Amino acid sequence: MTESQPPSISISAVPNIPLVKPGDDLTQLILDGLASAGLSLADGDILVVAQKVVSKAEGRMVNLKTVTPSRQALQVAAVTQKDPRLVEVILNESNRIERTRPGLLIVEQRLGLVCANAGVDRSNVAPGDDAEWVAKLPADPDASARRIRDALRQRTGKSVAVIVNDTHGRAFRNGAIGIAIGVAGLPALEDLRGHADLFGYILQYTQIALADQIASAASLLQGQADEGRPVILLRGVPHSPGEGSGKDLVRPIEQDLFRQLATGSRA
Amino acid sequence: MTESQPPSISISAVPNIPLVKPGDDLTQLILDGLASAGLSLADGDILVVAQKVVSKAEGRMVNLKTVTPSRQALQVAAVTQKDPRLVEVILNESNRIERTRPGLLIVEQRLGLVCANAGVDRSNVAPGDDAEWVAKLPADPDASARRIRDALRQRTGKSVAVIVNDTHGRAFRNGAIGIAIGVAGLPALEDLRGHADLFGYILQYTQIALADQIASAASLLQGQADEGRPVILLRGVPHSPGEGSGKDLVRPIEQDLFRQLATGSRA
Repeated sequence: MTESQPPSISISAVPNIPLVKPGDDLTQLILDGLASAGLSLADGDILVVAQKVVSKAEGRMVNLKTVTPSRQALQVAAVTQKDPRLVEVILNESNRIERTRPGLLIVEQRLGLVCANAGVDRSNVAPGDDAEWVAKLPADPDASARRIRDALRQRTGKSVAVIVNDTHGRAFRNGAIGIAIGVAGLPALEDLRGHADLFGYILQYTQIALADQIASAASLLQGQADEGRPVILLRGVPHSPGEGSGKDLVRPIEQDLFRQLATGSRA
Repeated sequence: MTESQPPSISISAVPNIPLVKPGDDLTQLILDGLASAGLSLADGDILVVAQKVVSKAEGRMVNLKTVTPSRQALQVAAVTQKDPRLVEVILNESNRIERTRPGLLIVEQRLGLVCANAGVDRSNVAPGDDAEWVAKLPADPDASARRIRDALRQRTGKSVAVIVNDTHGRAFRNGAIGIAIGVAGLPALEDLRGHADLFGYILQYTQIALADQIASAASLLQGQADEGRPVILLRGVPHSPGEGSGKDLVRPIEQDLFRQLATGSRA
């Protein structure tokens, strides 16, 4: 097999996205940013949008000065050494507490995500007015992605997949990575079951988390310490057709051997 | 802030890598593949090499026909419904068994990786001769990456970072993703502690798993069902200088709240 034209992917930051405010038309900011660099969208492109700007555009902000912590929040705040008002916001965004430690509060967030602080983030939210803003995750990140995808199609005629990504820690491994919390216009999981390899073995591998891998690739350019590059354009990512969702990537607790402690066998 | 030249990354498959055999000079195969497409390396490039071809070049293959399962392997094989000879190879590659289920054997592999089957893979190993080959992970993937990096520098004069990647499942989320098991020439973790965001907050985020994100990005082009694209070239990935290792990414069991069951608090 000789390939003269090897497959390739390009990843570009959409430049000149301004600071996003509640109510902003994120799709228009993206189109303006693309236009400022002479870029235009093509069918099959993938846009990855950082959760923080989606949350802000959707007004998912809470001023801690308006929050009164519950008794449970006060208790959890004592264990985790966190601001009780922040803990109150986190618990309201959570299905259950997973683990607590001084400095650490890991929950199952409403969407099923196992993550620190329910994804509620104090940094990068708004300039220092008198308020103490925190941002919650979008209420329905799949719907957020779909809205941007639909608006892009309406305004440009192009079919572009959209992923809303966030940066999360994980079990077993150090360091946080970009993951997909909302998906529209491509499969979140690539199903390889039944594919034969070069030698005719049937792969035992089941599924690849395509959307998470794209989210991590985009995260390489987004950075963490500022909001200058919240939107990333990927071109050339090979994938099957299909319509996935961020929910496809969330393993239910009853299928997770590292959360269902009693049922796992240990040698 | 106006950026006219937005940052970008290119990811290209190195074409025409032949089937790798034990003893092959992987560095030369990579250079030949690059040359076949008129590509050359530049300082700062990153090469991601799939574990399978590293293992094969290093002769990490075992013929199951030569394996006699131990009593423990027979017991674990009965629980997991796996070939007892394969289980014998897996257990020899493992520090401990983490979870078992029919069809599933999750271990702490010798390198500390929590993964299915200790990374031992039956597929994609060798053409169907009379043997039943499986491939183990490289004995020291950081050393493997360093050898390729050093050989590339010797033969081309260029300083290229090298990552050995593999595809692993994980807790909490469906689907496997590319991760870095060996690293040479760049930091595995980007340390953000102490960085201020746009508004002067100090980020609570600690570390980003740079090498894992690169491994996932490369995996987008590698595919799983054949060996046609085991080597991926990335150009333009922003990162700090430094020399990391695959070990940096492995969280010790005593620091992992989802393995140290007794010490996590649950609400």
